[in-house]
Amino acid sequence: MTIITSKANSLIKKLKIIAKKYRQHSYLIEGWHLFAEAQANNADIINIFVLERYASRVSEFPNIVLVSEDILKDLSASKTPQGIVAEIAFPKQVLPQQFFGKYLLLEDVQDPGNVGTIIRTADAAAFDAVFVSEKTADIYNSKTLRSMQGSHFHLPIYRVDLLSLVNDLKNAGVTTIATTLSDHSYDYKSLKKVENFALIMGNEGQGISSEMAEQADILTHITMPGRAESLNVAAAAAIFIFSLI
Amino acid sequence: MTIITSKANSLIKKLKIIAKKYRQHSYLIEGWHLFAEAQANNADIINIFVLERYASRVSEFPNIVLVSEDILKDLSASKTPQGIVAEIAFPKQVLPQQFFGKYLLLEDVQDPGNVGTIIRTADAAAFDAVFVSEKTADIYNSKTLRSMQGSHFHLPIYRVDLLSLVNDLKNAGVTTIATTLSDHSYDYKSLKKVENFALIMGNEGQGISSEMAEQADILTHITMPGRAESLNVAAAAAIFIFSLI
Repeated sequence: MTIITSKANSLIKKLKIIAKKYRQHSYLIEGWHLFAEAQANNADIINIFVLERYASRVSEFPNIVLVSEDILKDLSASKTPQGIVAEIAFPKQVLPQQFFGKYLLLEDVQDPGNVGTIIRTADAAAFDAVFVSEKTADIYNSKTLRSMQGSHFHLPIYRVDLLSLVNDLKNAGVTTIATTLSDHSYDYKSLKKVENFALIMGNEGQGISSEMAEQADILTHITMPGRAESLNVAAAAAIFIFSLI
Repeated sequence: MTIITSKANSLIKKLKIIAKKYRQHSYLIEGWHLFAEAQANNADIINIFVLERYASRVSEFPNIVLVSEDILKDLSASKTPQGIVAEIAFPKQVLPQQFFGKYLLLEDVQDPGNVGTIIRTADAAAFDAVFVSEKTADIYNSKTLRSMQGSHFHLPIYRVDLLSLVNDLKNAGVTTIATTLSDHSYDYKSLKKVENFALIMGNEGQGISSEMAEQADILTHITMPGRAESLNVAAAAAIFIFSLI
């Protein structure tokens, strides 16, 4: 057990940078719920920062750092970090050798809250993996983590070249289903259920790219009888995801 | 046309308070998209605050106030208010004399982003009205307005005593369908379609109240085969809303 009382401590300074933006090897989670998820799913917990009064709750861990409320707030995105922040190593990512299952692909989805909510929905629907494009919001952003509610501990998330992945998926016999904002495609209610598929959601404003629209097996949309011009991408994703299972 | 150059101007001071929290008769919208929606739907536009360089775009209106970027930022929740903020009068709310149609009821949904997204989804699905409980997040909060994307101009939103409304709806022959977090209810995929219904969504953490669960005609849930403990309420609402139409 270590005790750190100064904000100028080099570990704290390093982690404040990780908390804000520059994450290369690790990220921070806040609160007891996410910490329990990390533990239950054998995440690699590098450091545990707790207030002294909670130390007994994590006494079985070797890597505890006792900090003040002030320091904990500095490591946290929320005003009330619930007494615990933990540094978690990025999971080692090895792409699947074979593709079969239910996949979610996010092409340039920008809002962290949307990305997190969509991954949480895919987790609830027992999807097997998530693949995000290079320009999709950071998975380890505090807002993404908050809306994922620990789902990144339940299913693997890969950051890949999405167009080349779609090619591989098609070669493996996985039906690639891209969602569009226009109605020049199949209504989602008319799609036949398949066992192996990849659902592709696009950017909030632009939708999927034209390259993706060309490459995907099926284009689908949600018919909207009302007056809203579009759906929030996380709302649309929820409708697609649960219609496919 | 008026020109205001001082932040100490009494109208600006009054509207800064409206922008923040205390709204009794009017609220503020930002950006050209929402302004166009307000205009297209005959909202009562009290004042239009614009930068001088945009004045020609709104020259047909009598109630234009030219302001500086600084003042506009003070009236706005976003850092880039796109050159326009408008003060809109609360719509006059008269409850329907008769109930028939598709209704959305929100019981104590707390997050403004969730409330806005759910109303936008109900609008996309051509619901006829939205009723929110006293404790549901403010409809005219800037975050709610941003996620609604103008849907409050498309369908009426009433703040009411929800339990008493449910009673009236039942008496009018509207099927009241309350959504639950537990699975001691009907899976939503097994529900028969009805013409006149009210979908009731509950609070993010607690779900619907026990009084509501007792009063509603049908309890329904989303079966989740995966590992996420729950769905985001706006994601769940999207699944329910589009399954019912």
